Amino acid sequence: MLHNPGVTETLAQLVVGTRWDDLPAPVSHQAKRSAMNFFAVALTGCRSAPVEIALQTLAPFSGGKQSTIIGRRERIDALNAAFLNAAGANVLDFCDTHVPTAIHPTAPVAPALLALAELKPVSGRDFLLALVLGHEIECRIGLAMSPGHYNKGWHITSTCGVFGAAAASGKLLGLDAVQMVWALGAAAAQSAGLCECLGTAAKSASVGNAARNGLWSSLLAAKNFDGPPEPLTGAQGYYNAMTEPPQLSVLTDGLGETWEIMATAYKPYPCGFVIHPVLDCVLDWRREYPAAVVEKVVVTGNPLLAARTDRPNISTGRESQVSTQHAVAAALVTGQAGVAQFTDACVNDPAVLALRGKVGVVRDGRYATTAAEVAIATADGVIHKLSQPAARGSEANPMSDKDIEAKLRVAAADAIPGNDISSLIDAIWTLDRSRDISKLAALTVPHA
Amino acid sequence: MLHNPGVTETLAQLVVGTRWDDLPAPVSHQAKRSAMNFFAVALTGCRSAPVEIALQTLAPFSGGKQSTIIGRRERIDALNAAFLNAAGANVLDFCDTHVPTAIHPTAPVAPALLALAELKPVSGRDFLLALVLGHEIECRIGLAMSPGHYNKGWHITSTCGVFGAAAASGKLLGLDAVQMVWALGAAAAQSAGLCECLGTAAKSASVGNAARNGLWSSLLAAKNFDGPPEPLTGAQGYYNAMTEPPQLSVLTDGLGETWEIMATAYKPYPCGFVIHPVLDCVLDWRREYPAAVVEKVVVTGNPLLAARTDRPNISTGRESQVSTQHAVAAALVTGQAGVAQFTDACVNDPAVLALRGKVGVVRDGRYATTAAEVAIATADGVIHKLSQPAARGSEANPMSDKDIEAKLRVAAADAIPGNDISSLIDAIWTLDRSRDISKLAALTVPHA
Repeated sequence: MLHNPGVTETLAQLVVGTRWDDLPAPVSHQAKRSAMNFFAVALTGCRSAPVEIALQTLAPFSGGKQSTIIGRRERIDALNAAFLNAAGANVLDFCDTHVPTAIHPTAPVAPALLALAELKPVSGRDFLLALVLGHEIECRIGLAMSPGHYNKGWHITSTCGVFGAAAASGKLLGLDAVQMVWALGAAAAQSAGLCECLGTAAKSASVGNAARNGLWSSLLAAKNFDGPPEPLTGAQGYYNAMTEPPQLSVLTDGLGETWEIMATAYKPYPCGFVIHPVLDCVLDWRREYPAAVVEKVVVTGNPLLAARTDRPNISTGRESQVSTQHAVAAALVTGQAGVAQFTDACVNDPAVLALRGKVGVVRDGRYATTAAEVAIATADGVIHKLSQPAARGSEANPMSDKDIEAKLRVAAADAIPGNDISSLIDAIWTLDRSRDISKLAALTVPHA
Repeated sequence: MLHNPGVTETLAQLVVGTRWDDLPAPVSHQAKRSAMNFFAVALTGCRSAPVEIALQTLAPFSGGKQSTIIGRRERIDALNAAFLNAAGANVLDFCDTHVPTAIHPTAPVAPALLALAELKPVSGRDFLLALVLGHEIECRIGLAMSPGHYNKGWHITSTCGVFGAAAASGKLLGLDAVQMVWALGAAAAQSAGLCECLGTAAKSASVGNAARNGLWSSLLAAKNFDGPPEPLTGAQGYYNAMTEPPQLSVLTDGLGETWEIMATAYKPYPCGFVIHPVLDCVLDWRREYPAAVVEKVVVTGNPLLAARTDRPNISTGRESQVSTQHAVAAALVTGQAGVAQFTDACVNDPAVLALRGKVGVVRDGRYATTAAEVAIATADGVIHKLSQPAARGSEANPMSDKDIEAKLRVAAADAIPGNDISSLIDAIWTLDRSRDISKLAALTVPHA
């Protein structure tokens, strides 16, 4: 395989050959931001129903208890920890997004690495490097079949995440290029997940599996569990089954020179991203006019905003994540747009319910999906006009380091109120100086 | 969901509602034959490299050790036992075949049931009924997208097997119809496997997962891990992602009246089925002329025989499974066509090697793929003409109960020579009278 390598081997060689020193500083810093955001969303989801049920179901079969379940006191084996932490991180769709593909890239990758770091010594630099490479592999594999693959109903975070977890784990395990191709082959054989499952626990099965099976693929490859030489582009291989003809050049153009992790966005609000610029406007205004009585709200945005989120009548927290009416009403009533604002309880709050009926959505093709205008009519007869040209968290207006840090603080205050979260935040910002990250995940275990 | 049920719910209701008394006698008997064949092939594969590596990799993470690994003294948890026993049963492609789809239906289903039977009391009738229903669901789901799905590179045993394992496990767990739909949804979210992986260990990852994840899907559903109401035919569901528009009527026409397990064939030889009629001829002749010196062999058969198996130059046991030249030569030299005849050792046997060069393959479109003619020229100048119109194991000439029993005896003699295999054979033929099958798999554990 050393001469004229196939596409899969080219990707494998990138993973095997890239060193810490090859990463530009902004790239390794972005990996820290992704890790920070990951811990925030993992804490947010760690007691969700899919995680609770999966843990109950897996525990009788699990041995070793080597690994931390983020935000919980129970321990479990490494494979199942990877499953649970990935499922929890993604369950509310509050995790990071690779903008060109809509992959949520860190949820499947980081849990595999954290589980490995409790099995063998892993430095902070090795962790960050593996995280960057995992993103690179999963996002490039997804890019080459975007948007057709996702549009066909495949849950791309799951289907591509397994490759990211395999590549990143394989980097920490020191696989050679042949073994890395085998790991990617075993990952290809386990790639699954359907958008039809969104909004149900079944989504968490495929996201958790992406982390679990990716990690496992590399553990198998380390023991020479072989696979085909060209799992991605072989005649009966991954792309042939999964998509219309892929854009293969996307897999390798600029490989090792550009980094897909730089196309990652972080979410300030746990709801559909098209609603985000609307919430920016409403929350800013609410801070200025906390006591105002709102008569009417008109939201104007990209046609996708109305198509996806013009939903005045909803009954569950899950539905509220894609309702502009609810998001606006909840933000006006509470002054916030966090996890608590997208629960069944908030949906059924009479004050929120009353305001939902006063919110209208107007389509305007001149707006990007990340922009919006909001007009708020108050009881004193004034119409307040707000606008957001680039939503917080979008590429043009990324969340600052402090924003992401604050997101983690909010999540931790809810999930692990007795813990000193500053020590975790400090540990993440200084990952490149840590010789052993085996205690990192354990910083989220609630104190007794 | 109770009125105007969707396709998935209709399938779920079949599984939930069918009772032992609903099965015609030939159907429950066929289930016993499938179980017999399953134990034969599971014993054949239980020490294969993929099983060995997967066991080494899984053991550190496994707890409970509730379950038997067929043919081995190690024990492991139920989920991983399902994985290993399915992987082992399918590894040599010696397992049963649902002729219309090419699904190997028992390998993913039986291991899930046997693992459950070591966790809770399961009667022989419950086991057989669940096996029949698992076949029904996996084969109908596959039929509705055949042959396009398989032709696109999907390993249909893996992709459909997970549904069979989920349905069968769910039957034993007593899921209601709503939970059964959820189990099939979780199965859909985990359906994976590629033909590109055939001939490598990576194939075993997806076949093992089919059993493991199907079992797990039902365990999750029993705890109300929910899924979409229509995972198969929803707009972003299974069929939309996996195939060209499916033939949905195939899923439900005659449901509960016809049984797909009756379309199962069993293999007498661990090699490509197109070679089977050739081996029938050669082995029959060899029994009559054990000492004859062969000068030349001409095999005539369906064009697919030459297309797939005209391979005089091979170097591995794996390749030998699709070489007519090797199969004929090995059968002539040894008088057998078992697992030992398709190993690296036999491929490199000088006597076999010498004979391989004397075998030719002729295409003739008048032959079915299950028919062949063989002309053997011996040193005394005689040309012996043999023909087989319907291969042993084909639908027109099925393996008898005694044939399948003998297949298990041969496999057991090799894998567990110290065991009294008659007790397992008796237990299988009398499954419908067993109140508790918890000790069935353990009959294959080698004596100390």
